[in-house]
Amino acid sequence: MSYLPVDPARPEPVRVGLIGAGWMGAFHARSLASTIPGAVLAAIADPALEPAVSLAAELGVPQVTADPADLFADPAIDAVVIAGPIRFHAALSAAAARAGKHVFCEKPGATTLEELSEVEAAVAEAGVHWQIGFNRRYAADFLAARRDLAAGAVGTPQLLRSLTRDPGTGSIPHAARVPQWTMFLETLIHDFDALNWMNPGAEPVSVHVLADALVEPDLRDAGFIDTAVATIRYSNGAMAVAEASFSALYGYDVRGETFGSRGMVQAGRPTETAARTYGPEGLSARTPRLNIELFADAYRDELADFAAHAAARRDGAPAPDHGVPLTPGLADARRALAMARACIESVQTGLPASVAGSVVSGAGEAHDGAAAVAR
Amino acid sequence: MSYLPVDPARPEPVRVGLIGAGWMGAFHARSLASTIPGAVLAAIADPALEPAVSLAAELGVPQVTADPADLFADPAIDAVVIAGPIRFHAALSAAAARAGKHVFCEKPGATTLEELSEVEAAVAEAGVHWQIGFNRRYAADFLAARRDLAAGAVGTPQLLRSLTRDPGTGSIPHAARVPQWTMFLETLIHDFDALNWMNPGAEPVSVHVLADALVEPDLRDAGFIDTAVATIRYSNGAMAVAEASFSALYGYDVRGETFGSRGMVQAGRPTETAARTYGPEGLSARTPRLNIELFADAYRDELADFAAHAAARRDGAPAPDHGVPLTPGLADARRALAMARACIESVQTGLPASVAGSVVSGAGEAHDGAAAVAR
Amino acid sequence: MSYLPVDPARPEPVRVGLIGAGWMGAFHARSLASTIPGAVLAAIADPALEPAVSLAAELGVPQVTADPADLFADPAIDAVVIAGPIRFHAALSAAAARAGKHVFCEKPGATTLEELSEVEAAVAEAGVHWQIGFNRRYAADFLAARRDLAAGAVGTPQLLRSLTRDPGTGSIPHAARVPQWTMFLETLIHDFDALNWMNPGAEPVSVHVLADALVEPDLRDAGFIDTAVATIRYSNGAMAVAEASFSALYGYDVRGETFGSRGMVQAGRPTETAARTYGPEGLSARTPRLNIELFADAYRDELADFAAHAAARRDGAPAPDHGVPLTPGLADARRALAMARACIESVQTGLPASVAGSVVSGAGEAHDGAAAVAR
Amino acid sequence: MSYLPVDPARPEPVRVGLIGAGWMGAFHARSLASTIPGAVLAAIADPALEPAVSLAAELGVPQVTADPADLFADPAIDAVVIAGPIRFHAALSAAAARAGKHVFCEKPGATTLEELSEVEAAVAEAGVHWQIGFNRRYAADFLAARRDLAAGAVGTPQLLRSLTRDPGTGSIPHAARVPQWTMFLETLIHDFDALNWMNPGAEPVSVHVLADALVEPDLRDAGFIDTAVATIRYSNGAMAVAEASFSALYGYDVRGETFGSRGMVQAGRPTETAARTYGPEGLSARTPRLNIELFADAYRDELADFAAHAAARRDGAPAPDHGVPLTPGLADARRALAMARACIESVQTGLPASVAGSVVSGAGEAHDGAAAVAR
Repeated sequence: MSYLPVDPARPEPVRVGLIGAGWMGAFHARSLASTIPGAVLAAIADPALEPAVSLAAELGVPQVTADPADLFADPAIDAVVIAGPIRFHAALSAAAARAGKHVFCEKPGATTLEELSEVEAAVAEAGVHWQIGFNRRYAADFLAARRDLAAGAVGTPQLLRSLTRDPGTGSIPHAARVPQWTMFLETLIHDFDALNWMNPGAEPVSVHVLADALVEPDLRDAGFIDTAVATIRYSNGAMAVAEASFSALYGYDVRGETFGSRGMVQAGRPTETAARTYGPEGLSARTPRLNIELFADAYRDELADFAAHAAARRDGAPAPDHGVPLTPGLADARRALAMARACIESVQTGLPASVAGSVVSGAGEAHDGAAAVAR
Repeated sequence: MSYLPVDPARPEPVRVGLIGAGWMGAFHARSLASTIPGAVLAAIADPALEPAVSLAAELGVPQVTADPADLFADPAIDAVVIAGPIRFHAALSAAAARAGKHVFCEKPGATTLEELSEVEAAVAEAGVHWQIGFNRRYAADFLAARRDLAAGAVGTPQLLRSLTRDPGTGSIPHAARVPQWTMFLETLIHDFDALNWMNPGAEPVSVHVLADALVEPDLRDAGFIDTAVATIRYSNGAMAVAEASFSALYGYDVRGETFGSRGMVQAGRPTETAARTYGPEGLSARTPRLNIELFADAYRDELADFAAHAAARRDGAPAPDHGVPLTPGLADARRALAMARACIESVQTGLPASVAGSVVSGAGEAHDGAAAVAR
Repeated sequence: MSYLPVDPARPEPVRVGLIGAGWMGAFHARSLASTIPGAVLAAIADPALEPAVSLAAELGVPQVTADPADLFADPAIDAVVIAGPIRFHAALSAAAARAGKHVFCEKPGATTLEELSEVEAAVAEAGVHWQIGFNRRYAADFLAARRDLAAGAVGTPQLLRSLTRDPGTGSIPHAARVPQWTMFLETLIHDFDALNWMNPGAEPVSVHVLADALVEPDLRDAGFIDTAVATIRYSNGAMAVAEASFSALYGYDVRGETFGSRGMVQAGRPTETAARTYGPEGLSARTPRLNIELFADAYRDELADFAAHAAARRDGAPAPDHGVPLTPGLADARRALAMARACIESVQTGLPASVAGSVVSGAGEAHDGAAAVAR
Repeated sequence: MSYLPVDPARPEPVRVGLIGAGWMGAFHARSLASTIPGAVLAAIADPALEPAVSLAAELGVPQVTADPADLFADPAIDAVVIAGPIRFHAALSAAAARAGKHVFCEKPGATTLEELSEVEAAVAEAGVHWQIGFNRRYAADFLAARRDLAAGAVGTPQLLRSLTRDPGTGSIPHAARVPQWTMFLETLIHDFDALNWMNPGAEPVSVHVLADALVEPDLRDAGFIDTAVATIRYSNGAMAVAEASFSALYGYDVRGETFGSRGMVQAGRPTETAARTYGPEGLSARTPRLNIELFADAYRDELADFAAHAAARRDGAPAPDHGVPLTPGLADARRALAMARACIESVQTGLPASVAGSVVSGAGEAHDGAAAVAR
């Protein structure tokens, strides 16, 4: 007896180029290189060549470049993951799309709605798959809540809440160098998407924001914001609260709650594991400390979904179907970005602000109720 | 051998008259008649004599009257519990105080700050004990959270949340007869007090409100409100959210959360008991259905505290000391009422509103930080 | 206007005499004196007169005696609560019954089955109400679990667990003076009753015990037991585990679990309240520390149920109906005691032991399945 | 600009051959083929060639054979994963070891201690890494509990519990074909290892078992067992309970609890995710349904650990260090198997049985306390 040779029956893996090998990019690289079925990390582009090379060596990635254009020009690359500074997101997305690459872009899709329009145009013309890193949707508990919502557990949403608290120590490293509107463009944008996703068919209409530098009060006069609460009014009457802090001493805290005419669903994992310890002081349990721990599976699953979408688009196969709307695309990127921009306006005026441009004009995506908000 | 007679060593029970024997009044009556050590329910006043008499008979209360003035005139009565319609609260409180009776008044203390000033004057002149029915403070979990906060678990409060969801069926009985501002004067006022209590030393500065008739949309044009979210800015920079709905199909839901520079405390009991059931559909557990179930002990404990305070005042004994600020009095009633009034203004204008009169003028109770709010 | 006099419509309170004013007796006395509707604590009997008098003074109880016979002889006494040392339980119960008093007896009902037979005879002849202090049944979570079981949530019980861990410090005060079989007669007897109650219609058939002095190993040679695990086989095939320790550093831990052909119910409250605290170390919450805290309501409710039963018996009214079997009586006392005695035998032999005498002979209470145990 | 080529800096992946492509083997195959960094699934051996070929095709595994000897003879294979019927485990392990392959063997390591001795001899002589599939150790909550135990949270273990309930429907498919002692050799053996792991340094001394066919009573006379409770006495005095059922309607339920002189740790995940749903019936949440769902990460992590150990052994690198004892080897396999064998004896006699051969003779692994068990 000896081996019977076997022809593979699975599709070719998607060959991915990574743009930006910083903290988040390196995390994605590790996922792509080892735990994402259907993807191969083929090349890394980062102007900081030295760390990029050592990451590539560690992961067995055979080639590195300082210039993302090399990836765009490489016919062996199917898709790119964009994880660089947010000010380059839109231009890189558009260029990648124009080169025919499928795009996974970390949030936000752009820093302004105008920039995002350019991405939309390039993607539409190229017909590529474009996906944004709203990873929270892929967290098992958030997805379970969304499925229950789809099954009618909430009825019509009336009151929603989403919060993000980043782990901290009571002071924010390099706070003075954090861009002023990071709170809205990079942190609360996750909450905005989570709220939109949990309130399907409704459009955000207006926002009102409280924001301050409570962790780093010395930076208040410089306009720095580390703590914020935004209230959002939706076209279906629903009211939402998005809340964030840059410094929770107990770790990384992300939760969501949707209440409506039939009931409530909640997501958010208060402890790192189900383990519990009881001692003289009572009950204790460890809390999640890092986003890449709490959402380890979610980060992996969003990339696996991206790879599946890219492969399907490449091979002319049907796109993955998750039973509920899941894969976040350009319309989701726009809706959340429009809310972030309105929040910035509300901070500047101290007044409620209308959400403009949440639906791309002429796209026909506007929901019927969008015009008819209550008060 | 036979009995040794024993002289009692405990103080005379406080003799209480109840004003208003409706749903809440009858509940208090049952507590006073049976499970409050140190109190005796001596008489009931209610214009609806028939139900009052049958309640009195059931509880062994020997006398009933249609007119609260009879209680005020009765020298055998030490104290009154006011549980009638809110428009009479202030006048009854003031009259009781002028008659030298200690007063437990259901919330709100008055419907306007002007009315409340009259109560303050009467109470100050008479030197009686005056207490308001902010029962949430007495709930075991809220009190435990408050003690942890006092022990430093939160540090400086930065983000607070309080919510109330009344049990419902998806429609509100007699909604058309519910007074327009009930949401703020009777429901959210509990949340306002809870937030103030969890943010000691800070004053509410401004509010912004989203409010609507989402449960009973046909009453929207009549100005009815059954769903609301209020954001509150405090003098110490803290941001708070108070949220309420008149109709939660899963029961009575009350929660509080205070996050700050050192950590977070949470209160709120998601299930009726610790029992859990597992079946083919998964895990299930019953939820609390009624305020008088969820807060059964809290309602009893606030009256026991009242009786202890009244007895101490009557007997010249020291007031009970709970280790943390607990017994809610006139300053607390004023602070919460001022927030409710500001919320009403915010609804009317659609804009943020300043909280005026949260501290009685000249009372010297204003905290140092009250003037210096961030933005 | 002036008072309308009201005739009381409620039954005369039950006049209770307390026998034994030690730690548990004093706790019951405080309940009876203040928070049990329908009961009046009329007299206290305890050979230690001084503390009994000061307790009586504190609670307003007008008379005290060293001799319980004074209570039995007093026609004004309707009922007694027996809370003295367990070696006197049976004789006091029998004497009280013969004097026509309704009896609430702390567990165990007797220390041997023979003694319990005497109580049974006296109670049967006198026709009084006799109830045992299996308070766990009245805990809200245990009762909720029992109701779910009655509603079919478990199906046929197959695997049961009950545990008791007393709060401790790692060493047991006065351990050398604790009677040898206290573990079974006073502690695990609660678990035996809880298991029987959760496995209705089945009889305990055999037991096997592991027992040791793990907390106080120096007392092992003296036969002291502070840690034990008993497995019990029931007539319906169900297998149960009862487990206890005299020293849990994290407080008082009581839990129950019943698993069967349809699902599982669980009872047991892991934390003192629903409050949660999050800090640099993670999540923490206080644990219950004392039986009279964890079961405060249960202790009160069992006495209220006793008072209601005694009043009903006295007044010829129907007994309270709780919807599920609740009030524990002589058959329950016997079943649990028979298990404790079998456990003692198992410890002595190191082998499984049959449970003898769990059903009073000729009482016709044996369930159909009792004879047909599996193996 | 163009690509910079990068030399890989990571070790060659471990080339794994899978023996047995049934349900569990196929699951391991999928892990090895896609999500285990450092491993490559190089070949599959299974006498049922057709499903093995189609699995290989799906996963891109290039070769298949009916005969495991082909794997042993293949110099390109570093290691094997044994997932066939348990009666072949020992012989396959020994043959693989003799061929110089590192071995991951599903539990049990053998069906008798004698068989296991042969494996021990072969492994010792070949110097290969041998690991057993006690995956529970790798579950995040179990590992967290074990770390807390190592840090002193429990003190000296006194009372332990481990349980396994397999998901079911109330009847067991093909029950008549399930081997008689499956309960102990395949199910409770997980619990035995979990208990041993949580009671480090102690040896199991004796067991007593209750066992029955409660789910399939018609098979009782054939000796089938679907429900069992085993009590275990350890050399350090600790008492443990292991409990299992083959049919839980609410899904897959695995829990562990270790109580001792300083406190308690618990593991076990009651719900599938942290999501919670509230509706008219109260709170609900989905429960885990399958072992490969509940322990998805644990199954992956045990294989990743195996690959890391095998690579280290192959490359002369230091073995992975997990901070606490984790990777289960031959001594662990023996200890758990000895308990399973003693349980079978206890079922046969109805009496307690001594645990013989839990430590390999002459191995010097016996702990000091092993000889001195209490009673």
